Amino acid sequence: MPAYTAPVDDMIFVLGDLLDAPAVLAPLGGEEVPLSLMAEVLGEAGRFCEKVAQPINRSGDEEGCVLENGAVRTPKGFPEAYAAFVEGGWPGLSHAPEHGGQGLPRVLQVLFDEMLSSANFSFGLYPGLTRGAVEAIERHADASLKDIYLPPMVEGRWMGAMALTEAHAGTDLGLLRARAEPQPDGSYRVSGSKIFISAGDHDLSENIIHLVLARLPDAPPGVRGISLFLVPKFLPDGEGRPGQRNGVLVGSIEHKMGIKASATCVMNYDEATGWLVGAPHQGLRAMFTMMNAERLFVGIQGLGIAEAAYQGASAYARERLQGRAPGAAAGAAQPILVHPDVRKMLLSIRAFAESGRALAAWTALEMEKAARHPDPAARARADGMVALLTPVIKAAFTDLGFEAAVQGQQVFGGHGYVREWGMEQLVRDARIAQIYEGTNGVQAMDLVGRKLTMEGGALPRAFFAEVRDSLAAHAGSEFSAPVLEALSRLEAATEALAARAAADPAETGAAATDYLRFFALVALGWMWARMALLPSAPPAKQAVARFFMARVLPQTVALELALKAGAAPLMALEEAAF
Amino acid sequence: MPAYTAPVDDMIFVLGDLLDAPAVLAPLGGEEVPLSLMAEVLGEAGRFCEKVAQPINRSGDEEGCVLENGAVRTPKGFPEAYAAFVEGGWPGLSHAPEHGGQGLPRVLQVLFDEMLSSANFSFGLYPGLTRGAVEAIERHADASLKDIYLPPMVEGRWMGAMALTEAHAGTDLGLLRARAEPQPDGSYRVSGSKIFISAGDHDLSENIIHLVLARLPDAPPGVRGISLFLVPKFLPDGEGRPGQRNGVLVGSIEHKMGIKASATCVMNYDEATGWLVGAPHQGLRAMFTMMNAERLFVGIQGLGIAEAAYQGASAYARERLQGRAPGAAAGAAQPILVHPDVRKMLLSIRAFAESGRALAAWTALEMEKAARHPDPAARARADGMVALLTPVIKAAFTDLGFEAAVQGQQVFGGHGYVREWGMEQLVRDARIAQIYEGTNGVQAMDLVGRKLTMEGGALPRAFFAEVRDSLAAHAGSEFSAPVLEALSRLEAATEALAARAAADPAETGAAATDYLRFFALVALGWMWARMALLPSAPPAKQAVARFFMARVLPQTVALELALKAGAAPLMALEEAAF
Repeated sequence: MPAYTAPVDDMIFVLGDLLDAPAVLAPLGGEEVPLSLMAEVLGEAGRFCEKVAQPINRSGDEEGCVLENGAVRTPKGFPEAYAAFVEGGWPGLSHAPEHGGQGLPRVLQVLFDEMLSSANFSFGLYPGLTRGAVEAIERHADASLKDIYLPPMVEGRWMGAMALTEAHAGTDLGLLRARAEPQPDGSYRVSGSKIFISAGDHDLSENIIHLVLARLPDAPPGVRGISLFLVPKFLPDGEGRPGQRNGVLVGSIEHKMGIKASATCVMNYDEATGWLVGAPHQGLRAMFTMMNAERLFVGIQGLGIAEAAYQGASAYARERLQGRAPGAAAGAAQPILVHPDVRKMLLSIRAFAESGRALAAWTALEMEKAARHPDPAARARADGMVALLTPVIKAAFTDLGFEAAVQGQQVFGGHGYVREWGMEQLVRDARIAQIYEGTNGVQAMDLVGRKLTMEGGALPRAFFAEVRDSLAAHAGSEFSAPVLEALSRLEAATEALAARAAADPAETGAAATDYLRFFALVALGWMWARMALLPSAPPAKQAVARFFMARVLPQTVALELALKAGAAPLMALEEAAF
Repeated sequence: MPAYTAPVDDMIFVLGDLLDAPAVLAPLGGEEVPLSLMAEVLGEAGRFCEKVAQPINRSGDEEGCVLENGAVRTPKGFPEAYAAFVEGGWPGLSHAPEHGGQGLPRVLQVLFDEMLSSANFSFGLYPGLTRGAVEAIERHADASLKDIYLPPMVEGRWMGAMALTEAHAGTDLGLLRARAEPQPDGSYRVSGSKIFISAGDHDLSENIIHLVLARLPDAPPGVRGISLFLVPKFLPDGEGRPGQRNGVLVGSIEHKMGIKASATCVMNYDEATGWLVGAPHQGLRAMFTMMNAERLFVGIQGLGIAEAAYQGASAYARERLQGRAPGAAAGAAQPILVHPDVRKMLLSIRAFAESGRALAAWTALEMEKAARHPDPAARARADGMVALLTPVIKAAFTDLGFEAAVQGQQVFGGHGYVREWGMEQLVRDARIAQIYEGTNGVQAMDLVGRKLTMEGGALPRAFFAEVRDSLAAHAGSEFSAPVLEALSRLEAATEALAARAAADPAETGAAATDYLRFFALVALGWMWARMALLPSAPPAKQAVARFFMARVLPQTVALELALKAGAAPLMALEEAAF
């Protein structure tokens, strides 16, 4: 298993030199968080990942989760590691102090998520889901539900799960059939079967709080008839302790390609007692609160995989002796790092990991502004940035994370294919992130079909202006110029797409994934330009930035050509001929 | 598990309409093989794959190989399936009749390999390795070895394995340490430990013939001191039956990401009796006979995976109901095939699978010409084509095959990640093909560092001329024009690279993988143009060809830009900064 060292120095470079996070956060109210405190928190978080989460990553993959007597058992060491996680106060890191959280900036949570995903993707998924559930309850549930459920969830004693998908209703939630019957006491009886429920059951926490999408008896058909219900595994007793067992049953667990230490459950809700969260038939809105947070989290999982792949592969490339540098005279074998193609693989990973980290941190600060900026216009603007970047980060970071895992594995040659070395697990684990929380195709449709067009196209305009403005002072530099050039082409492609899509709705879907990658490469290039232009940037930052400009950003030219080709080449083949 | 239907009709389109294989083969001597016989053989082969090999593909993955009492047991059904394979006469399909083969054209073997790799990648690997061993023995061993070993190997009663890699010597075979001591009777005592030996042991055949690279006592250091030895698991007795057990021992088997039904062994040769194959210290040459055949075979494995991924994903896309077509009014959910992005994934796979099949068949016919054409100049020309295309097919087909598997899995959404559906196995199995028989980076170096430059650059010149000439009559067509345009850019890139590499040897490695993909896309585009231009081409061929021209071929523009950026961005970062 490759060792893992939390990249805290680079995180501090991003939070300090690049983004000046303390200055961004200062006007938002709340306690001031100096960079030194951020460094301390990240250092502690990194140690947890290195010492607790990472050592059980491979054993967790080998052992997997087991369903025994209707209950899921996580792999050896997982309950203990989670107990240490709770003990360290990590579940409440960025949650509101009023529910027991530490109220630290979300950007620290995002960076911690990256580290956890590097160290142990499956382990990190459990608290990640709980955080999404906490946010949905905070935002949409009534006060009495909040009072009962938020404190133990923020503390980490209780955890959360999201129950959306049914066998016949994945992307198309309008098809779902689970039902909820109102009871005289104001509660509901929730019934139905859900699949692919991550953390639907496990042995990490005293209780598991399911947020379940279901239909009320008077629900209109389709997505306008879906409501959200809070359904605990154990009904809380009068003192807020887990009491009577609820009708929340594990049907089976899935046998998967990866994330084997994460329990993916078929859940049967059998007249389970639940409570409505938010307004009737407005469940999808409430669920989207949760899903947007989760989508960012999933993007960060891709980033974490890339960092882990880089660390494993660069260490191996320094140690493995095969062949000699190009043009070197005969002699003893040298580390494979001398080979240009090995360097290319490593630099490709790093070109994503470091700029992805920067873009994720920038987005996390925008989320803080969206939530807490005193100026409503600034809140709205930041909210638009987050809405725009969410599908980009989810899809591009998980695609690039998977590619990074594959490249990292390739550096190991045959050893990369053998389980013992741990690199193939990164590939298997990374793969899910491109699929769950809305496949990357769905993310691309969200970007192109919704985010680009809402408010008359204001979201991309604001983002493009931000990129251009922030590089304006150095527009001619070797780092800015290629990004500004690509940005101009992206703007043109955005306008051309809007015109096309108005004429033919198939154009949106035909362009979606290529457009999203184009957008992501410009956004990552923006971060590289900003980092490389900093007077404090170490020489390595500039070297990797140059690699990005020369070897990665030109991919946008091919994406642009694909976009120009439009939908016709995709739609011409008749269905029967597939 | 997705069903599999052998694409015999498309194969006949390729062999008949596209390549007119019977006419190509006629002047080469040997028995005439009309298209009707080819269709019959492929039909039978397809039935074997559908009915025998495919049904044990997923169970083989779940069960894997087991090492028990020093012997490897293959999964349930594998010995019976292999017995049926031998019973059907398949091992000797294209081997010489003088050793018991059927002497059918190699192109039929290549197409059978594709089908076997689609149906059961692990199963197909066993006879694939034997074929490579047979070719090395045929070409390099002396008559007495041929007489003893070839008949049972061609019959399939005995199988083969290649033992090259050692723990510290993978790509860099010059480092290997296995030793061979000459004995008074002309045999050798072979000792050493080898890793990653596919089919090193198993229970499919009576005997296993290992071809082992080792050093003689007087061997010069490095690759010029390596000899090839034939080392049987059981020493043949006087009647050619497996007799005394030789010192060929399985140390362990690897636990891998995929191809779990293929035994990957650590082999210990403990003073094992062996015989020299070819001249002393010339083992690498002999081994390359085997490896070139294997490299084409591995490329075909990638192709087979792509076809399997296409079949699984297109069937699912027709059945799975989610959402509605772009712009469709509300109503019942439709098959996901209506979504442009799903079509894009399917078409991307098919754009490779069908042109890859055509290019593989074209290359197989060149191999026949190289071996049997009466005109030495035609033999040499064909030999050059095969030498040039071998690394391209190995690397590009396995990369594109892996990408196809990933896209096919993506079409399935969450179900693609669950083992039961079989799509994730394609991804895991496909992954090895990018690594073994020389990683794809090594293939790219072979192409760029050797094949482009040997004989003063004659190989690419001949290939480029063939492409241009064959499209000249239709140069302005929508199918030829983009390929000819890309070809011109590829020619320019080839010349520019030669100039650069002369100045800095790092340029070769820096360009290698991007150049290889560029080359492959032009070669695949050439096949699309030729197929689409045929008067007999079905409308679907033209539709997929248009997709290729519009959506795939433009990737060459980005590759060209990456090549122009050169080595500097890869080499600038100092080693300590990785």
